[in-house]
Amino acid sequence: MNSSALHCISYGLYVVSSRQGDRLNGQIANTVFQVTSEPATIAVSVNKQNLTHEFIRSSRVFSVSVLSQETPMRFIGRFGFQSGREIDKFAEVQYRIGHTGAPIVLDHALAFLEASVIQEKDAGTHTIFIGEVVDAEILKAGSCMTYSYYHEVKRGKAPKTAPTYIEEQVEEETKGGGAMAKYECTVCGYVYDPELGDPDADIKPGTTFEDLPEDWVCPVCGAGKEDFEKVA
Amino acid sequence: MNSSALHCISYGLYVVSSRQGDRLNGQIANTVFQVTSEPATIAVSVNKQNLTHEFIRSSRVFSVSVLSQETPMRFIGRFGFQSGREIDKFAEVQYRIGHTGAPIVLDHALAFLEASVIQEKDAGTHTIFIGEVVDAEILKAGSCMTYSYYHEVKRGKAPKTAPTYIEEQVEEETKGGGAMAKYECTVCGYVYDPELGDPDADIKPGTTFEDLPEDWVCPVCGAGKEDFEKVA
Repeated sequence: MNSSALHCISYGLYVVSSRQGDRLNGQIANTVFQVTSEPATIAVSVNKQNLTHEFIRSSRVFSVSVLSQETPMRFIGRFGFQSGREIDKFAEVQYRIGHTGAPIVLDHALAFLEASVIQEKDAGTHTIFIGEVVDAEILKAGSCMTYSYYHEVKRGKAPKTAPTYIEEQVEEETKGGGAMAKYECTVCGYVYDPELGDPDADIKPGTTFEDLPEDWVCPVCGAGKEDFEKVA
Repeated sequence: MNSSALHCISYGLYVVSSRQGDRLNGQIANTVFQVTSEPATIAVSVNKQNLTHEFIRSSRVFSVSVLSQETPMRFIGRFGFQSGREIDKFAEVQYRIGHTGAPIVLDHALAFLEASVIQEKDAGTHTIFIGEVVDAEILKAGSCMTYSYYHEVKRGKAPKTAPTYIEEQVEEETKGGGAMAKYECTVCGYVYDPELGDPDADIKPGTTFEDLPEDWVCPVCGAGKEDFEKVA
């Protein structure tokens, strides 16, 4: 059995948001899909450990923002690798409140869907929430971010709570290496490759890790340089 | 509400297969996704009207073949627009029998996953089957077929039993038109566009519908020329 075959499944990349009372939260998700067309229903699989899971559980509403291919890693890091238990993810993003009361993230979104939960299915570490679509809009034209684009072009990782997370992913992807040393973020597993730099932060290719500004942070999770370790 | 936003969700394209006694069947599906990583589980949403639904229901096993971007429309038509109640879909394809007894389609497959159903969720017109992955292999390198590639590049349609089917799709996509008339398949909705020809059948761009060989068939569902109607 070769579990890499699981990586051949195609996904998009989304922010799934919900609320609990006055608190708003959202997280990155890749497992969003349409279930039926009459009525239009969508499903999302959310890890039970996530705050968004708790919020959807209590409010029974959620929104899905479809991310554009141009979404910066920093944004994905904020919504995908930081917890709403520690930061207010909505403090610095544009959003609006939908018909259901769920917040809808507008930054980097090409479209959104808003849904009321009609069913849920316990699936072990995750719950699959099925919601009837109550609102949906296209916000702008563009190519949507796919999970493979995120991995191949943006060099993104899956957080440990994602359905697609695998222990070996960091080791696998850091084999070999050029003349300049790569550094790995111990928080999220992102690998800084000097040959590629960090375009989101205007760090040019060829910049060694040592030459990065002291206030440079991991583009995925926001950890500081001190949280990085040299890749052997 | 703009339901086109539902088209911004990304999917791959797969053949989902199962068996019932000695009978084998499979169908095209786009809603396949990983649910949990420990244990590795995958889900697939299948229309209750489909024979494959009946087979998975009774045998509790299924396989998923991940299709390559080069998969011909004719193959997708056979598995996606014809029913196993009328033809034996496995008569002309290469397959093998997996550990669970489910057939695994090998033609045009980059990888496969085989699963035993551990849970199912009634979702109205569809059932979501959740299966534990019992085998998985990569078969060859290549780009996987995504649903957007199928629609944009291959000009494919969704059958009426797909979660993503919409009534308007044919009308929407056949507006305008060039000097040469387009013809629509009344069985599956495929539109023959003379400006594009039918590369799968070696029909060059510029070939009018009238000039197509009399034995030419719809590349999606296999219907004959007599089943086509001129698009107004």
